[in-house]
Amino acid sequence: MRILAALLSFCFVLGGDLSAWAGGIGSRVFVVERSLERVAVYDFVERKLRDQRIGGLGNLQHATMTFSPDLKYGYVSARSGQLSRINLETLKLEGTYQASENSIDIAISQDGRFIATAEYKPGGVTIVDAKSLELLKRLPVPGQASRVTGMVDAPGNRFICVQMEGREVWVIDASKPDFPIEKRIWLDSRVGLPYDAMITPDGRYYIVGHLGQPEVSLIDLSQENPKAVLISLLDPKEEFDRANPIKLPHMASWAVAGNHVFIPLVGEKRLVVLDRTDWSFVQSIPVKGHPVYAVRSPSEQEIWVSFSGEEDDSFVQVIDVKSMAVTETLEIGGRIYHMDFTPRGAFMLISANRANKLFLVNATTHAIEDQVELESPSGVFGVWRAFRIGL
Amino acid sequence: MRILAALLSFCFVLGGDLSAWAGGIGSRVFVVERSLERVAVYDFVERKLRDQRIGGLGNLQHATMTFSPDLKYGYVSARSGQLSRINLETLKLEGTYQASENSIDIAISQDGRFIATAEYKPGGVTIVDAKSLELLKRLPVPGQASRVTGMVDAPGNRFICVQMEGREVWVIDASKPDFPIEKRIWLDSRVGLPYDAMITPDGRYYIVGHLGQPEVSLIDLSQENPKAVLISLLDPKEEFDRANPIKLPHMASWAVAGNHVFIPLVGEKRLVVLDRTDWSFVQSIPVKGHPVYAVRSPSEQEIWVSFSGEEDDSFVQVIDVKSMAVTETLEIGGRIYHMDFTPRGAFMLISANRANKLFLVNATTHAIEDQVELESPSGVFGVWRAFRIGL
Repeated sequence: MRILAALLSFCFVLGGDLSAWAGGIGSRVFVVERSLERVAVYDFVERKLRDQRIGGLGNLQHATMTFSPDLKYGYVSARSGQLSRINLETLKLEGTYQASENSIDIAISQDGRFIATAEYKPGGVTIVDAKSLELLKRLPVPGQASRVTGMVDAPGNRFICVQMEGREVWVIDASKPDFPIEKRIWLDSRVGLPYDAMITPDGRYYIVGHLGQPEVSLIDLSQENPKAVLISLLDPKEEFDRANPIKLPHMASWAVAGNHVFIPLVGEKRLVVLDRTDWSFVQSIPVKGHPVYAVRSPSEQEIWVSFSGEEDDSFVQVIDVKSMAVTETLEIGGRIYHMDFTPRGAFMLISANRANKLFLVNATTHAIEDQVELESPSGVFGVWRAFRIGL
Repeated sequence: MRILAALLSFCFVLGGDLSAWAGGIGSRVFVVERSLERVAVYDFVERKLRDQRIGGLGNLQHATMTFSPDLKYGYVSARSGQLSRINLETLKLEGTYQASENSIDIAISQDGRFIATAEYKPGGVTIVDAKSLELLKRLPVPGQASRVTGMVDAPGNRFICVQMEGREVWVIDASKPDFPIEKRIWLDSRVGLPYDAMITPDGRYYIVGHLGQPEVSLIDLSQENPKAVLISLLDPKEEFDRANPIKLPHMASWAVAGNHVFIPLVGEKRLVVLDRTDWSFVQSIPVKGHPVYAVRSPSEQEIWVSFSGEEDDSFVQVIDVKSMAVTETLEIGGRIYHMDFTPRGAFMLISANRANKLFLVNATTHAIEDQVELESPSGVFGVWRAFRIGL
């Protein structure tokens, strides 16, 4: 056995090309350097920032990345409407498609065959082939101009998105050749403009935020004829100061842990906790400042919260899910923009935009174990997003 | 922008090494060909079985694979005690270590630095460096001979395993240099021999099965001083025929979905449903035969069940989580041994040992979309296991 193993190893050295292989693909993290309109690559296992950068991607304000199921490609949709594909091995730009004049969101179908972008201008959806980047379908908003946002994948190889001015959620069936709009779900016209949306990690609920509104629209996608239901985020017991101006919340920042959903309330110094089963109000959790992101640990035992405002935006608070209380406050670096746990939860990756740094924090000891210099870092996208519904 | 993109693509073609790159790493699935003591590789995106096989791994009865967080390596622990490392890019054996005379289980630490094997002979645990495969620690069972099984990773960079004859659960702290046994949890000596264990996907509960016993031991790892509590799997309302002989259940086959845990009862034609929060009995779900595996879809909306016994073992039943009832019965192929969903849930991979085939089933339409010939296939291990607690 050992002789065979040695022989195989020998063959590998002869035939292999390890020289071309620096670090594995699974631990690569793409970080947007927003002001320079380029993407950097950090490896959290090697603890090394690559020298090379990926540019030519367009305006990367609020850009997100999605990854193919075989981890060959990452896809970026720029505000300037360009869809770009990055080879995850060579880290080179490998194909672009001008999808719109102004795109806001992107998703890959669960079978990995299609990329859909949500667009502000002209309002609508563009679906391209993930391999060839060829246009397969344009779904314009009929009859009126409306921006489209909140694009996600959903079970059954569906795409879901929401029209802002049109106040309508679309369920697009990407398992059929012509990508029919399978369901249209109307949103209440008396509440504020829909501005963003998310899907729960199990792909069951689609949740739409409304501008200046203390309610969200909840859609149970497992129903035959799903309807939007308004869910309140008000605290029936307490008053919390509401600040002005109200910044837009990030819907992608809601954290589902165990039987609860944790929602950072923009303009208030609290998180709202809702029951995951019936979406009733459970309690508020007071926090240090105005929360921006709430991220659950893979163990679902902690929620890490970032804040807006120069006084608070260097800090992260850790909430213990069992006691529903803040257990620790960590000072990391100025203007924390994005956070993501590594897949099994050993580390937290944090970008600090004013500090011009990316941090690797030990999720157990809370010690900063590594930090690298970046130019105005914002979004942090690990390739493991390929394996999660809604990312 | 387009000129720049074209230029970058051109540079890539000049400098790249695409010839060495057939298919991405993210969609590779390793399938044990048990009788030939080798592993085959199937790509579910390419829908292609590689010609090459990986041999020299030892006796692969009940072998499982675990993967490094950077997706550079897969690790196999053979019954014959050999730990093997497979390069996930070249698919070649790249290093072995003879850990014991008889190993049963394997885990990788959440930080990716250590591999731990649980051993039948001599009873104990071996921890090696994941990069060098050098021995770092031997943890023999003190005072008596006892087999060790049920090795998993847990939050806080811990390893957890259970002694069979010793009736003790160990929590090993892999965040400390000497790998101390941080906690020892005694199991009730009046119940049957512990034979296997699992950890819930959130890493909170460790569950130990006892031979011939209608109870399992449940340990809440989030407690400071965790104790084992006996949880009954009996149905208080109904009688189900219990068949003889009672085959060993696979603990790894328990499915946690939403607020429920679904447990295939070996020797009875039902699944047990327990409440995930307080572990109380909810109901039984009658099924076609004696269930072996219960696998949840990533959407947590379906449970797919396989069966033992030549009459039933070609079938898979689909249980709808909402209605808690069987909604479909699929005939796939003889002696289904293992099942795994692709990460976002678009497809199910099923090995059928007697049929000598691996199947790719569309998880929405339930159509068999691809099938490849293999010799006595058993375990099916997708590289995405790298990103899940307990796998």
